[in-house]
Amino acid sequence: MAIDSGGRTGRRPGSGSSRDEILQAAREQFTEHGFKGATLRAIAAQAGVDPGLIRHFFGDKAGLFTASLELPPEAVRTVLATFSAPSDEWGVRATRAYFGLWEDPETAGPLRATVVSAFANDQALERLRDFLAATVLQQVTAHLPQDDPGLRLTTAMTHLLGVAIGRYLLQVPPLVAADLDDIVAMVAPTIQHYLTGPLPSAAAQT
Amino acid sequence: MAIDSGGRTGRRPGSGSSRDEILQAAREQFTEHGFKGATLRAIAAQAGVDPGLIRHFFGDKAGLFTASLELPPEAVRTVLATFSAPSDEWGVRATRAYFGLWEDPETAGPLRATVVSAFANDQALERLRDFLAATVLQQVTAHLPQDDPGLRLTTAMTHLLGVAIGRYLLQVPPLVAADLDDIVAMVAPTIQHYLTGPLPSAAAQT
Repeated sequence: MAIDSGGRTGRRPGSGSSRDEILQAAREQFTEHGFKGATLRAIAAQAGVDPGLIRHFFGDKAGLFTASLELPPEAVRTVLATFSAPSDEWGVRATRAYFGLWEDPETAGPLRATVVSAFANDQALERLRDFLAATVLQQVTAHLPQDDPGLRLTTAMTHLLGVAIGRYLLQVPPLVAADLDDIVAMVAPTIQHYLTGPLPSAAAQT
Repeated sequence: MAIDSGGRTGRRPGSGSSRDEILQAAREQFTEHGFKGATLRAIAAQAGVDPGLIRHFFGDKAGLFTASLELPPEAVRTVLATFSAPSDEWGVRATRAYFGLWEDPETAGPLRATVVSAFANDQALERLRDFLAATVLQQVTAHLPQDDPGLRLTTAMTHLLGVAIGRYLLQVPPLVAADLDDIVAMVAPTIQHYLTGPLPSAAAQT
């Protein structure tokens, strides 16, 4: 029996369409229950596959969520890899890696879709927030100076997001006209400062 | 004859509903022709009023556009007023004024609507970009150091936008938990630096 003949044939281990059905089920479950509420078990049941197949394709729930956004999982990994470099390189590396995703046609579309869908509906917004909280925030804050690492990281992240929105979505002329290198040179020291520099509140209290 | 009795009665100088009809016509004309293409004459014609009445209510085309976004015109003026203060106060003033708009329930809703609608459709996005280019960019860049004032201003603006998106739309926990004063203390020096500090590209070339 051809398992990819178009009709629903139940469990189809490892086939391309199993992967697609998992993604489809994941989008529905994440939308309905949020990142926290959705379970691999429920997604597997809806897709008619074994939970182990989800792990095989996507690693864990965060990997599955990223894939369900149609962002290549390497995209997130590329940015996260920043934090295995020496800490005085984080600003430049995170900035380059992040804008690199927006410059690459393969990742630019999904990123744009993620941002646009997050603003278009509250469930997508919540889903994105939960995902950021459960992955990027949790994984990266452990590396940062422990005086308010969450504020450090989110100020840095939203700075990058804002500039990306200005350059790639709003297409504000001066940001479009600028060389990416000039933008990185301008923004990276700020990112570095937010991630590892002294916090102003600490300075004000001493 | 009661001019506000509900039926269309043609030109109704100065009445509340003239104002509403102008705004409605403005939204349609801006959407159809963009900020540049729409004319006060065409908007007045569509609303069935004299162009002078538009000037009376809204000042100029930018004022009308701002009003058509349902942003109080004072909102934009509050932020622009930053640049009549001494230049070493710009960072703090612009940051406080901008986040103040997002904290104020009266302006927070329209701001949210502006951002959400800009991402929801390309025409609104274009409309917002044209408006920013024709007003904020044009008015403010004249005050800035003339080495790439557009890049200075747009980097600063998109930084503020990004943090506002993180705190007020995405509601990323560490940005929501932070005191506004701490966020201002963290972000304002960066804004000041982008607006008036040395540009990195200049530093690299010397």
